[in-house]
Order: sequence, then C-alpha cells, then structure tokens
Amino acid sequence: MHKVIFDTDPGIDDAMALLFLERHPDIELLGITSVFGNASADTTTRNAQFLKREFGISAPVARGADETYDPARPMAPWPVVVHGVNGLGDIEMPETVDDVPLDPRPAFQFIIDTVRENPGEVEIVAVGRMTNLALALARDPEIAGLVKQVVVMGGAFERNGNVTPAAEANIHGDPEAADAVFTAPWKVVIIGLDVTIQTVMTRTTMKDLALRGGPAVELLAKISDPYIDFYSQQVDDGMVVHDSCACVYVVAPELFGLRAGTVRVVCGGIADGLTLQKPAGPFFPPSAWHDKPEQHVAMTIEAKKVVDLVAATLAP
Amino acid sequence: MHKVIFDTDPGIDDAMALLFLERHPDIELLGITSVFGNASADTTTRNAQFLKREFGISAPVARGADETYDPARPMAPWPVVVHGVNGLGDIEMPETVDDVPLDPRPAFQFIIDTVRENPGEVEIVAVGRMTNLALALARDPEIAGLVKQVVVMGGAFERNGNVTPAAEANIHGDPEAADAVFTAPWKVVIIGLDVTIQTVMTRTTMKDLALRGGPAVELLAKISDPYIDFYSQQVDDGMVVHDSCACVYVVAPELFGLRAGTVRVVCGGIADGLTLQKPAGPFFPPSAWHDKPEQHVAMTIEAKKVVDLVAATLAP
Repeated sequence: MHKVIFDTDPGIDDAMALLFLERHPDIELLGITSVFGNASADTTTRNAQFLKREFGISAPVARGADETYDPARPMAPWPVVVHGVNGLGDIEMPETVDDVPLDPRPAFQFIIDTVRENPGEVEIVAVGRMTNLALALARDPEIAGLVKQVVVMGGAFERNGNVTPAAEANIHGDPEAADAVFTAPWKVVIIGLDVTIQTVMTRTTMKDLALRGGPAVELLAKISDPYIDFYSQQVDDGMVVHDSCACVYVVAPELFGLRAGTVRVVCGGIADGLTLQKPAGPFFPPSAWHDKPEQHVAMTIEAKKVVDLVAATLAP
Repeated sequence: MHKVIFDTDPGIDDAMALLFLERHPDIELLGITSVFGNASADTTTRNAQFLKREFGISAPVARGADETYDPARPMAPWPVVVHGVNGLGDIEMPETVDDVPLDPRPAFQFIIDTVRENPGEVEIVAVGRMTNLALALARDPEIAGLVKQVVVMGGAFERNGNVTPAAEANIHGDPEAADAVFTAPWKVVIIGLDVTIQTVMTRTTMKDLALRGGPAVELLAKISDPYIDFYSQQVDDGMVVHDSCACVYVVAPELFGLRAGTVRVVCGGIADGLTLQKPAGPFFPPSAWHDKPEQHVAMTIEAKKVVDLVAATLAP
C-alpha cells in the first residue's frame, strides 16, 4: 500500500485527484493538507472538508498556509476565472462544513508528525503551492530523510508556463517554497505542464463516468463543467487532469519518462517562478544548480493510459 | 546584395563567419565592429584587424565596447578554454596589426552612421555580446526604424544554455544589452543554441576545405584545431559553427524554421541571461512580455544544408 499525504488547494482538478487517491485500491490516504492557491486557505480548507464528506473519506483534513513562505511577497488575486469564486466551479455550497472537524494541528505539523510515525513510508503528493512542505522542512529538516518520495504537480520545463510565459501557477504562487522543496535532500518527482497538458478527459467521458461512479463522480462532473468551458481555449471539449497525473505517478510510474538533474526555481524578476533543471551529465561551470540533490522531472507521459487509469479508478 | 555590418568578438567560429560573409557573392560587407566577449576588446579588435588583413577584406574595422552596457556588472574571466588566450586558438600572432588602421569612430557610432547612410538596407549580424547594438540604440533610437534586420547568434530557448544551465554565452555576457536589442522596434531574428548546436563541421571537412580554399581557409583550419578538441566533449571530431549560422540566415533564411513572439532576457538572479519567448497566440495575463515587438526565434534548422553552404562558400 502507498501511504499518501495529499497536499492540495481544491480546486477542481484537485477534487478529481482526491477521489482518485481515495478510490485507488493500492493507496492508503493518511491525510489531506490544505493550502491557499486556487482560492484562499479559508476556502480551500472548507472545500477539503466538503469533499471529505461528499466522497466519504476517513482521512483527516489539516488546515495549511494562508500566505507565501516569504510573507513579504505581495498576494495575487485568486484564479476565479479557472476554479470559480468558491474554488469548486461555483456550485452551491455551504459556507462552512462544521460536521467535518479539522485536525487540530497546522498542516506542516501534521506532515511532520505523520512522516515521523511512518518512517520511510510516506509519499507526499503536492498539487498546490509548496508552502506547507517548505514550512515542514524548515521546522524539522530531518523529515527529508524519512519521506519515501514527494510527487509534485507543478512547473514548466521545456515549454511556457500558464500564469506567465515563464511560470506555472503552483510554482509562481510560492517560488521560494518550491525552491526549498526541490533543493532538499529527498526524492522529488516533478510532474509539470510539459506532460500534464497532454492529459485531457473529455466532457463525454466525464458524463459517462458520472452515470457509473455514483454521487461522488456526479459531483465531480458538476464542478468540472465550467472548468471544461474554461479549457476550451486550449483543448477540445475536455479538462486537463493536471493534479491526477501526480497521483497516477504514485501507482503507475512506468507511464512517465523522467529526466534526472538538479532543479532550481527563479525567485523574483520577470521570470519569477520559472523552473529550470540542469540535466545530469553535461558539464557546466559552477552555478546555482551545483551541489544540489538530483530530482526527477517528467518529460514524457503515456497520456491516454493515464487518463484511462483515472477513469477506471473513479468509476471501476 | 545584402549590406551587412558584422558585429563580432573573434573568436574562432567568428573568424569562419567573417570569411563566409566576405566570400559569399550576395553579401557586401560594410564593416566589422568588434566587441569584448571571447576575449578583451583589445584582443578581439586586434584579431579583427588581423583577420581583415589575412582574409584580404576591404571593409573597415571599428573598435567596440570593452565593458557591459550596465558598467556596474562585474567582469567575468575570458573563455580561454574555448578560444585560447589570444582568442584565435593561440596560434602565433603579432601583438598589434598596425598596418590595418581602425576606423576612427567607436563601433556604436560606426553602426549609426552606416545605417543612416543606407536607410532600410543594412542587415546587422551580431555574433557576440550585444553591447554595441544597445549603445547605438541608446544614442540614436531612430536607427531601429532604418535597419533592415538584426540577425543574432545567441540565446537558448527550449534547451539549456552553455555558460550556465540557464544562459548562453553571448546573452549571459551582457543581458541588459540583449534585452534592449530584443525589445527594440526592429526585426530581430535570433539563431540560438537550439539550432546552432546541430551544425557540426568535421575536422576532415575542415582539412579538405583548407586544401582548396587558399591561405585564408588554411588559417581557419589552423585556428579551429584546438576548438575542435574542445568540442570533443559534445560532438564527434568537429566544430559547431555557431556564428556562421547567423550569416547563413541572411542569404538562406529558408533553411531555418522561425517562431514569432516577444522575447525578454532575465537580468540578474540565478537565471541571469536566460532568454524566454512568449510565442504569439496563447493568452497570458499581462507580464514583462506584454506590448513588446514580436521577434523571431529559430526553432528548426536544416543543419546539413547550412554546413554545406558554409563549406561551399569558404572554398567554392
């Protein structure tokens, strides 16, 4: 069994990824940690509680960061055009979900405690800004040696970002946190736009899954509808399942081609949030990429198999 | 006829590019402007005088910049491991070439005057740091509207640089100058590492050309020998003809596939000198790439045809 902590800012594709983790038979979900990003921390935490209830998830929710790792960074507006004002496609939702109590600990402490209780076993799947992970590392650097792997949805390596030409949203939202995570001595696998953009679940598939997957998938289909409309600029009548790709990597890494090499994040300036890897092998004079741990960046993906696995897991 | 100003820091592949320009029947070389880069401005200027004499070139040499556009930038060491201490593979050379007088004007003024004397006709081929061009633009911004095109060898767009994982040498050597050139309202075609790295002239070809091309090509072969040794890390017994690619573009643009879009250069930080294009088409919120002129970046090249054209021109 893969013991997973899901660090997330639900978020529409986050919701699908969460249901994938919950329903996959080889995954044991240890906890959900929220983080600001697709909406405020108040909203993403409430959404995590809501999804926990609607999806019948037993794992706890711990509330995470509501500002960047470097609090001096100015706050940007929420991406309401992508995920809606409420973060879940503006479906009708309760203001609060009081019947789903929160874990009393902040997310970074939940991560530290859970990793220490399961040494060498925890896989952290992080699909939002990496603020909680950076805070956990800063508070307890030893956890780096106790985590099995960190699988990140984020970054854009051989292509443009989606927030600026340089940067992808999860990294752009907290570059200092991402740089801390990528340069820490643990295994990080980065599933970025280079590959996620190829994974399109069509509206037709979504509707078909809703017929077979019960109320949880019906809910997914409902919140995904405006997201599919948004993506009509880029793909044909479907949604890109960014966050699910990172979850699929946990159980089916053979569907991804990885490139090894140190990864740094540009912090500040016009390319703020740009991710850049120095592939292992070529010689360069000393630079900011020197003497950092080699991480793993997905350069190829078997996109159809990834989408099929997501579909088969959501509605077996 | 293509009226060309060649802005250069000879440099070994610069020397080959210079001979290509001199020998191509459709090119009229209006002048050679030197710039620091592969060696100091003293050395690259002396080398330009030396090559003018050895190649029998009538076009004048004007001495260019010896420091970055922003003089506050610290100077980096010369790349003696690539081009030798004397910039031309450490062949025996005179300290000075007094029988080849310099144009009395600094390079930026030579560029301004020559452009104004040939409105709409001058093509600037820039294969070193872009300092002279940035100084010319700063002194006389109107020349942007009077230049036919600027063809640059520099940058790395969908691949790593060669000085750092982020940056290519010509851009890294003066990022502020390159950013000024790429954001000015003239047509810039950027021939970067993405394509130049594919153009390899083998040692065998070089020796064969020397037998047929007379003393000028014999000289090229001699200075290229250690450069080919240097490149043995990357290519098999040959030299990458980076700078000649920009010259070939002038007469054979059909050998290149260009991508349109605004281009900016990262100035400062770990990605100092990184070049990044926002392709025309995809929507992004406002960023540093907004409202700048669209430039043209080479993404594909018919490498064999480019090398063959260089060979055929050097030794017809």
